Amino acid sequence: MKLDSSASGVYSIAPTPFLEDGAIDWNSVDRMTDYYFEMGCDGFTILGVLGEAPKLDAEEALAMAARVIKRANGKPIIVGVSAPGFAAMRSLARKVMDLGAAGVMIAPGGGLKTDDQITAYFRNAMEAVGSDIPWVLQDYPQSTGVTMSNGVVKKIVTEHPSLAVLKHEDWPGLDKITTLRGWEKDGSMRKISILVGNNGLFFDFELDRGVDGANTGYAFPDMLVEMWKLSRAGKRDAQHDLFDNHLPLLRYDQQPGVGLAARKYMLVRRGVLSSPAMRRPAPAFSKESKAEVDYLLSRLSQRDPRIKLNPA
Amino acid sequence: MKLDSSASGVYSIAPTPFLEDGAIDWNSVDRMTDYYFEMGCDGFTILGVLGEAPKLDAEEALAMAARVIKRANGKPIIVGVSAPGFAAMRSLARKVMDLGAAGVMIAPGGGLKTDDQITAYFRNAMEAVGSDIPWVLQDYPQSTGVTMSNGVVKKIVTEHPSLAVLKHEDWPGLDKITTLRGWEKDGSMRKISILVGNNGLFFDFELDRGVDGANTGYAFPDMLVEMWKLSRAGKRDAQHDLFDNHLPLLRYDQQPGVGLAARKYMLVRRGVLSSPAMRRPAPAFSKESKAEVDYLLSRLSQRDPRIKLNPA
Amino acid sequence: MKLDSSASGVYSIAPTPFLEDGAIDWNSVDRMTDYYFEMGCDGFTILGVLGEAPKLDAEEALAMAARVIKRANGKPIIVGVSAPGFAAMRSLARKVMDLGAAGVMIAPGGGLKTDDQITAYFRNAMEAVGSDIPWVLQDYPQSTGVTMSNGVVKKIVTEHPSLAVLKHEDWPGLDKITTLRGWEKDGSMRKISILVGNNGLFFDFELDRGVDGANTGYAFPDMLVEMWKLSRAGKRDAQHDLFDNHLPLLRYDQQPGVGLAARKYMLVRRGVLSSPAMRRPAPAFSKESKAEVDYLLSRLSQRDPRIKLNPA
Amino acid sequence: MKLDSSASGVYSIAPTPFLEDGAIDWNSVDRMTDYYFEMGCDGFTILGVLGEAPKLDAEEALAMAARVIKRANGKPIIVGVSAPGFAAMRSLARKVMDLGAAGVMIAPGGGLKTDDQITAYFRNAMEAVGSDIPWVLQDYPQSTGVTMSNGVVKKIVTEHPSLAVLKHEDWPGLDKITTLRGWEKDGSMRKISILVGNNGLFFDFELDRGVDGANTGYAFPDMLVEMWKLSRAGKRDAQHDLFDNHLPLLRYDQQPGVGLAARKYMLVRRGVLSSPAMRRPAPAFSKESKAEVDYLLSRLSQRDPRIKLNPA
Repeated sequence: MKLDSSASGVYSIAPTPFLEDGAIDWNSVDRMTDYYFEMGCDGFTILGVLGEAPKLDAEEALAMAARVIKRANGKPIIVGVSAPGFAAMRSLARKVMDLGAAGVMIAPGGGLKTDDQITAYFRNAMEAVGSDIPWVLQDYPQSTGVTMSNGVVKKIVTEHPSLAVLKHEDWPGLDKITTLRGWEKDGSMRKISILVGNNGLFFDFELDRGVDGANTGYAFPDMLVEMWKLSRAGKRDAQHDLFDNHLPLLRYDQQPGVGLAARKYMLVRRGVLSSPAMRRPAPAFSKESKAEVDYLLSRLSQRDPRIKLNPA
Repeated sequence: MKLDSSASGVYSIAPTPFLEDGAIDWNSVDRMTDYYFEMGCDGFTILGVLGEAPKLDAEEALAMAARVIKRANGKPIIVGVSAPGFAAMRSLARKVMDLGAAGVMIAPGGGLKTDDQITAYFRNAMEAVGSDIPWVLQDYPQSTGVTMSNGVVKKIVTEHPSLAVLKHEDWPGLDKITTLRGWEKDGSMRKISILVGNNGLFFDFELDRGVDGANTGYAFPDMLVEMWKLSRAGKRDAQHDLFDNHLPLLRYDQQPGVGLAARKYMLVRRGVLSSPAMRRPAPAFSKESKAEVDYLLSRLSQRDPRIKLNPA
Repeated sequence: MKLDSSASGVYSIAPTPFLEDGAIDWNSVDRMTDYYFEMGCDGFTILGVLGEAPKLDAEEALAMAARVIKRANGKPIIVGVSAPGFAAMRSLARKVMDLGAAGVMIAPGGGLKTDDQITAYFRNAMEAVGSDIPWVLQDYPQSTGVTMSNGVVKKIVTEHPSLAVLKHEDWPGLDKITTLRGWEKDGSMRKISILVGNNGLFFDFELDRGVDGANTGYAFPDMLVEMWKLSRAGKRDAQHDLFDNHLPLLRYDQQPGVGLAARKYMLVRRGVLSSPAMRRPAPAFSKESKAEVDYLLSRLSQRDPRIKLNPA
Repeated sequence: MKLDSSASGVYSIAPTPFLEDGAIDWNSVDRMTDYYFEMGCDGFTILGVLGEAPKLDAEEALAMAARVIKRANGKPIIVGVSAPGFAAMRSLARKVMDLGAAGVMIAPGGGLKTDDQITAYFRNAMEAVGSDIPWVLQDYPQSTGVTMSNGVVKKIVTEHPSLAVLKHEDWPGLDKITTLRGWEKDGSMRKISILVGNNGLFFDFELDRGVDGANTGYAFPDMLVEMWKLSRAGKRDAQHDLFDNHLPLLRYDQQPGVGLAARKYMLVRRGVLSSPAMRRPAPAFSKESKAEVDYLLSRLSQRDPRIKLNPA
């Protein structure tokens, strides 16, 4: 199933599972694939920032995509294809689409500054990748160093009909959502899917502002799914209550570097991954940090008895 | 009273109150000065990032310091003196100390890269300012663009006996606290005061990691004071419960730009400021953002009936 | 005489002369003022990057401007008023215009990213400074970190009739000149004065591309004046021959940091300054560097016997 | 022949020749390989910044290396293996060494800030690549954004015996050379080869400061070779005279972006490449720029009649 601009719900961002020796942990890859769909996700994305994509070589990246797409058995898998150059981007994009990916995700390349440089970048990217591949525009200036104004996002959306989803993780970013949704309403920008990232740190209000769902890697995708349902049902207070229960952990998890270590560890405690191992350069995950995550998980379990965890 | 390395408790960071026309709102300055001490703060800092310091000219900065120091009547006021050059830094520092400030706060200047450049910067700063003035080292890479490793902080602490406080707001930063406290314990670094910033987004665990208190501008300094007391009393769960109640708002408040607008608005609702006005360039504070802050305040009041607010 | 968009010829950028103890060297200030006009400059700019402006406090900056403007006796002096905030910018700008400055120079503030942020910055700056003051827009991304596309420059020019001069020092920058001059010709942008900076490293071709002159601080402003005259006389090869003679030194001089030290030293050897002293933080000027500058000056004197220098 | 720390002379940096349709131009690859050795180079480097390395996919990069190494027939070829992650770096490094490369070149990854982060990076890189591969440390902060102090370079040299060459292109950088050579002399750092880059913009004085040669891509490598010989023969004035003849072109060529376009065009005029084509994103090379390069080449030919060129 190909991605299109009607995408809504929760698309998780998946890590790449490694064994302690740094090899890809294929058993965990399969378990993780099943897990996201069991938790209610509509699809998920591999080989993003969270997926430690730059730490895989070209063959590994392709093997990872092949395994996940096959296991997903027709359910939507999005593949991050951001690369320092367009030849590598094209190469990976064409290959994963042939394997059955639902679409690809592209972030602006480093060093882009002016509005014109950014829009030119995506014209070059589309010429390389091809206009037939549905794609997710990743708007994440904290990581890429590239700031896209509202007007630049609109221009990119307008120039590229194959852009299906905006992965919105600019920060602060709430008013950007309101502006873009306003432009869709008054007809000055075509309707796209807006899914939010940044670990869902503002998912409570982003839902209120009208986003279509989430495209982020919080270790409790089931909570993101429940948030989305509560929002659709108009139960605003319940939606915020649920969010507030998770916020201490979400906030911890959203730290750059150590957050990924924490998230892999949580997926171990949820029985998804067999190891929290990361490839180098890996952030430190100190025994103090581990104890803090355990404490937060314990507090969360007390608030929500449905949550079952492996022992620490 | 001069600042020294035994500083502990809560030192708030104060905004600069403006009238709608951009003039300094002296009545609010006085009310705010009283407020921080009534809320239990041990002192507070003016003319920091939150204080819109670069938007004041030299005469205004001095007038602001004079008014607050006089009103504080001997209680500790710290003055931010970070400046693009050492002449302006020296000029403001000497003048406010003559007026009775407790100490000054200095952040590394923009553009510093290597460890050597950073330590040289503070040697130059100290030669300009004088080694007789107690000072706060602001470690806030998200704002300054300058990253100080643990070892660099230790070197600066060791080279400058007049450094009294580390305003710790590196992020992620929990392990940095543990490392520095470890060095104090094993004698490889002298004991300083570590007070945390970054709007207290990790104050729950920072207290667990052994900091001496907070030096940050959250609009509920009374909550920071209570957190500190619970920590000192060893009531860890209660400390985290209180924190979790405030986290949705803390998180909102911590956004760059719009967070300051939100904070000034909250201080209006708490009866401290007469206006949320900011000088230009001022971040937008949309009606949606205002409604979100009101919603968060309303939820907070429900959880803690002691909180009294002016109508929205 | 006020600056306007007909400005042409050479406007030097002046350093701030210091004594060995760091005090402003007023005798050298006077001598330097006379020097630039004796060399054929049409005016000059003080308190720019080269003028170590951030190292002066507010009173010193004003005193420097007052002394130079008085000495210039009606000839055009431009004053750099770039500041971290608009209050300080306004304060200095209004005061130096009252003293008789010809105009002010403003660079975009640090941290601006999108086109919209940049144009908003100058709207705020103009509202603070006042629309009655002629000004120079400094386009120097290597120093400010702010990249202005051709379209953004055009927008700023169009929105602000008081903008008289573009100090063009973007790099690479030759095609930007051609584009802007093209827009003037086809009527899509009003005619402004374009004077070039970046130490004149491309002044040979910038003249060919149609700029109105230079606004840069090379220690041989007489050479810049002669270049301009050769260009106006249509003597292209002679213009390039003269340029090539100076290029080894120009190139040395253009290095960030050490270039300013070299330049002050050359002004000592030309009899203008009494000392090459800089305020801290000052770049190292090693004995090897000094010997290299002496060697380059000696080679230059051999090529052009008109050049007289004090002994090394 | 493997690279070692006795490397001296001129190692050019080679572009990647493309046909107009963006395919690799294998005939030009062969001609270019012969050319560098005919011009007197001791070896050359492929797949660097100048080689548009990020624009090749993994298979193309390997094919390029294989072709050049085979054609060089035992003469030293260095291969740039900088990559966003260590798996890709390792993969390319091991493969090209198996093919017969003399060594690899590695620049620090983007985003490194503190001294500790930089040295950790190279420990990780060496663990990935293997300590048996001779390598060139590229010190080019203008491109990588990573500034390595003198002390950090020393630490990396000391920790990694397989580091053979420092490609020195920090700027300003003359005193760095003097410091490092001083440390070699007093025994505090082992002797390495220092070859300079940054298009040779300071090669005149870098030779005087004691470097072992050049590792840069100026389109006249024969001039770099002659410079090196004059320096070894102690003919300092002749060395500077030759340099000054080329400086107008060197300076033009050194501009980021457009400089590479100019360089490819010059290699066409020298009969080495069949086309100046670049892959996207390619800098503009306007007709004005082309005319300027032609003018500079014409002036150069007049000064040095040995230079023969194809018609413009």
